[in-house]
Amino acid sequence: MRLAELLLGKRIADRDADTERLGVASGVPVLGLDALASAAYGPEAALTVLLALGAAGIRFAGPVTLVIVALLAVVQTSYRQTIGAYPDGGGSYTVSKENLGKGLGLVAAAALFVDYALNVAVAISAGVGALVSAVPRLLPLTLPLCLALLALLTLANLRGLRTTGVLFMIPTAAFVACLGGVILLGLVRAALAGGHPAPVVPPTPLHAATAAVSAWIVVRAFAAGCTAMTGVEAVSNAVPVFRAPAQARAKRTLATVVGILVVLLLGIAALTHAYGIGATEPGAPGYQSVLSQLVAAVGGRGPLYAVAMAAVIAVLCLSANTSFADFPRLCRALALDRHLPEAFAHAGRRLVYSTGVVLLAALAGVLLLAFRGITDRLVPLFAVGAFTAFTLSQAGMVVHWRRHPGPSSRRSLALNAAGAALTGATLLVILASKFAEGAWITVLCIPALVVLFRRMRARYDAVLSAIRTDAPLDLEDAVPPVVVVPVRHLDQVTRKALRFALTISPDVHAIQVLAAEREVENLANVWDRQVAEPARRRGLHPPQLVRLRTQYREVVDPLLAYVRRLAAQDRSRFVAVLVPELVETRWYHALFFSHTATALKRMLLSRGGPQVVVIDAPWHLAGHRRVSPRRRAQAEARVPLAVRTAER
Amino acid sequence: MRLAELLLGKRIADRDADTERLGVASGVPVLGLDALASAAYGPEAALTVLLALGAAGIRFAGPVTLVIVALLAVVQTSYRQTIGAYPDGGGSYTVSKENLGKGLGLVAAAALFVDYALNVAVAISAGVGALVSAVPRLLPLTLPLCLALLALLTLANLRGLRTTGVLFMIPTAAFVACLGGVILLGLVRAALAGGHPAPVVPPTPLHAATAAVSAWIVVRAFAAGCTAMTGVEAVSNAVPVFRAPAQARAKRTLATVVGILVVLLLGIAALTHAYGIGATEPGAPGYQSVLSQLVAAVGGRGPLYAVAMAAVIAVLCLSANTSFADFPRLCRALALDRHLPEAFAHAGRRLVYSTGVVLLAALAGVLLLAFRGITDRLVPLFAVGAFTAFTLSQAGMVVHWRRHPGPSSRRSLALNAAGAALTGATLLVILASKFAEGAWITVLCIPALVVLFRRMRARYDAVLSAIRTDAPLDLEDAVPPVVVVPVRHLDQVTRKALRFALTISPDVHAIQVLAAEREVENLANVWDRQVAEPARRRGLHPPQLVRLRTQYREVVDPLLAYVRRLAAQDRSRFVAVLVPELVETRWYHALFFSHTATALKRMLLSRGGPQVVVIDAPWHLAGHRRVSPRRRAQAEARVPLAVRTAER
Repeated sequence: MRLAELLLGKRIADRDADTERLGVASGVPVLGLDALASAAYGPEAALTVLLALGAAGIRFAGPVTLVIVALLAVVQTSYRQTIGAYPDGGGSYTVSKENLGKGLGLVAAAALFVDYALNVAVAISAGVGALVSAVPRLLPLTLPLCLALLALLTLANLRGLRTTGVLFMIPTAAFVACLGGVILLGLVRAALAGGHPAPVVPPTPLHAATAAVSAWIVVRAFAAGCTAMTGVEAVSNAVPVFRAPAQARAKRTLATVVGILVVLLLGIAALTHAYGIGATEPGAPGYQSVLSQLVAAVGGRGPLYAVAMAAVIAVLCLSANTSFADFPRLCRALALDRHLPEAFAHAGRRLVYSTGVVLLAALAGVLLLAFRGITDRLVPLFAVGAFTAFTLSQAGMVVHWRRHPGPSSRRSLALNAAGAALTGATLLVILASKFAEGAWITVLCIPALVVLFRRMRARYDAVLSAIRTDAPLDLEDAVPPVVVVPVRHLDQVTRKALRFALTISPDVHAIQVLAAEREVENLANVWDRQVAEPARRRGLHPPQLVRLRTQYREVVDPLLAYVRRLAAQDRSRFVAVLVPELVETRWYHALFFSHTATALKRMLLSRGGPQVVVIDAPWHLAGHRRVSPRRRAQAEARVPLAVRTAER
Repeated sequence: MRLAELLLGKRIADRDADTERLGVASGVPVLGLDALASAAYGPEAALTVLLALGAAGIRFAGPVTLVIVALLAVVQTSYRQTIGAYPDGGGSYTVSKENLGKGLGLVAAAALFVDYALNVAVAISAGVGALVSAVPRLLPLTLPLCLALLALLTLANLRGLRTTGVLFMIPTAAFVACLGGVILLGLVRAALAGGHPAPVVPPTPLHAATAAVSAWIVVRAFAAGCTAMTGVEAVSNAVPVFRAPAQARAKRTLATVVGILVVLLLGIAALTHAYGIGATEPGAPGYQSVLSQLVAAVGGRGPLYAVAMAAVIAVLCLSANTSFADFPRLCRALALDRHLPEAFAHAGRRLVYSTGVVLLAALAGVLLLAFRGITDRLVPLFAVGAFTAFTLSQAGMVVHWRRHPGPSSRRSLALNAAGAALTGATLLVILASKFAEGAWITVLCIPALVVLFRRMRARYDAVLSAIRTDAPLDLEDAVPPVVVVPVRHLDQVTRKALRFALTISPDVHAIQVLAAEREVENLANVWDRQVAEPARRRGLHPPQLVRLRTQYREVVDPLLAYVRRLAAQDRSRFVAVLVPELVETRWYHALFFSHTATALKRMLLSRGGPQVVVIDAPWHLAGHRRVSPRRRAQAEARVPLAVRTAER
């Protein structure tokens, strides 16, 4: 308990939920880092494709960026509309399910499920990759750094949205300020130099073209640059995390994120053009990221460079947070529809859906371990998931506007249709260009997840229909149970059990199992004086002692067989097995004593049959680890005995 | 159950215990392999020390072997006497404890504990080491081979002594036959050649001496050669595993093992001398074991060589079995004295002390993994443990004979005293020569284990004295308990629980915890019709519905607080918490449903206080994994309802 409180913070009451909600300033770091970090890798991805065109390639960076920015504007407007239409959060799953049907809803959910898990691994390893390429001494620590970062993100998110927002606000602000400053400085210098500024540190010269200009290369550059758009959907999914008016704040957050991103993308495009900066071959010696060349070209490699690159690396590292904010909400939506276990639907001690956070951390941890922290090969896998969800969500909104015609629904429909078409086209380009590189894995995973979600739902429905009933309680055979008490010695532990047994039934069987090698006292000698006689004196039916001999050195089987016989004798009666148990005061003491009680309980519950009920009678060793009176009072004070309908 | 039967075999009844006992022929492979395998590494160890003397060193091999053989004879006679004096098995622990006191007994036990665990790891890795040096292609598989061998030994031993004996009899016989044949052939050839036979394959020539002859080198060679003596104590520890007359068979087994070992040691010594075979530098290129040189010198590298070396490697691999036979018996002796958990004292399904087998396998597995299957550095550690136990056991026997004077006790005392002095001296030599190489670790481990054993005993004694009582059962306040039933819906699961609750008490509280986000039906609306009314109709006190509101989204704390309040209201009454539970039919279904019931039970048992009793009311989903009638009949037939004292 103490440890949980230290790590995760005090529990937050429902009535204090508002303190955990976000404004725009904290919403941007919590939900926008994925989109903002795109500024670091989107242009780079596009320029890397254009590398094949040599110096001529840079010419195309501008137009490609303009198209991407236009697409961003369309997508942003489209998601604004989703926010307006779904005040409880319009994730791709919800929008697709409600407008395109359950099947496509689950496809969107599965695509996002894959996307988020991969995104966490990829974002963390990209951030750590940038860090170790800046500080090569850290290279051998790649995997530990990845796992440490994962642990940090997990813990921050388990502590709640507020903690995450506050914690990540500073790196986010530094990132925006530094990149913004560099862009401003660069533009001023470019303007003063009449459009052809001299770089402080010249960028890496570009090689000669290795391919002719073709539409396919430009389209691929566009598709690669579109990775800059992932993360834009996050805000619309998470409307309820904002303080009232939630929809307005969500829209403002989305506008802020997209606005900053557009400025950064345009600024970067302008400066790469002005300074003649292209990508360098990734993985080859002398590799330098576009942003690193750009910052150095504008401001040299002084303190500004160090601060700006540190901020870029920090935001890359933390960009996984967007998945942490959205994945648990996706799981919750699935759990509410019984496609995932119920635990995903419940908010934890800090009002976040902790089960989802933990699952995401586990999936990402497995991926990081499996790929030893270098997840480049996973990139094509996650883009497929993201754009599938995008497209379905936009298509869902098209249907939504057709079903809910309103004053501006025609314009909205057009915008969403444009969004769907563009993201769908991008998805096709990604699939075509990356299928062989691994995108096919996602294509296989999505239907597998859909099947899993459907199976879970079917199972829940089967169970619920099996246990549902409206009939009045059937008390036909309400007679006291036969109580079976396994005894070994007549110690305090056993006595407590016998005492309890005598208070609930007149028919108590005390069973002593006699196994060779386990020396036990013959209780028959003392039974009358110590047990039967006191019971008779109190007017109670004395328990009978039954001694079973076994050849197999264990007590579970003979007891189980005896219980089954008792059950067979009267099918309408409960057989209650009362297991005396010594409760340990320290966890390691549990290693000392035999676990017969645990094994017995498990066997009885799973194989005892429908009449068997198991009773645990714990006996506590006195004087150890008592709950302190203060803590107990606290616990009791927390629980108002509220609505009580006395019904006697 | 099925899997356990397939892997471990059918359960063996106590009355069939005799079929699992050993004769001499099976006793040798079960208990003697450690000693016999010594023939392969004892002479080698001595000759390796003598390597420093160059060709002159071989001269000393004969005398050193003679002293070792003499020591073996003394030790064997001494252990014969232990067998005679301790028909229930006279392990070093028992003998030391009874004659030298509890403290030294625990020292002997700790020394053996360390010795056995290390011995398994060392023997397995030595065997696999010999295998991979014969078949270098297997070198990358060293660790997997070690672990596979460990698994084989563990499984064989869990299946019982009989399986182990039968399984290992063939390699043992092959080993003895091959080495015996080689020695015989070599001696005949040597005799025919007048003492100077020509080797078929000449042994590796010896380098020039690097040290002068000194007493210290010869003493160290003797100490190294003494490793040939480990394992001789095994038989005396395990007298009860033999068929009647157990002591006679044990003595014959011991004589057989030592007899074969003496013949092999003498034969090897004679042939190394005749053929001029010395050790080669271990680990250096061109390394060849003494036995390999010897077999090649006598018979060439034909099929005989292949078969003989295969048998040697097999016996080296299996020599860990001696520890598997003895370690569980040591643990049992400790457990009977409450120095280890009770589970170690109970025989498992195949009449071996399975818990000890599993612990030994786990310890050895950890060592093999930690050292990646190459455990050379552990050798000095385990010799210290073995010779400490030897010395204490012999010293114990000296005291034994002084306390139990008899016709031949003076002779016996002298023999044991000689044994104690010689093994004690050897221990000092080992300590002196290997202390810095790692023997100090054992010297630290032994007291740590002694402290652990003492602590366990103290804890058990404290618990037993806390729960022991002879007073008649106190039934002063035998009134029915208050029964608390957490309810969420009024489904079949809950109804079964309520039905049971009504049969055991008139005072039933049904608690519905209302948490935000968990939608529940307001049971107040249906309570009267579905529950209270049927109860009244049957003349039962209707259960009252209590609705608790919580701000913290979980049900355990409010329930616990409510239960504590009820307990505080009447300190003399039991509070029974009845937890309705859906029992899953497939293990993976347990992932689906919430684990509130489990969490609740755990909290109630550990923190509920002395009045709380927990009742599990399982509800089984019908139609899945029913126990088949045949299996149920079998289970019931196995259990005779034997001694029954009806006491009403």
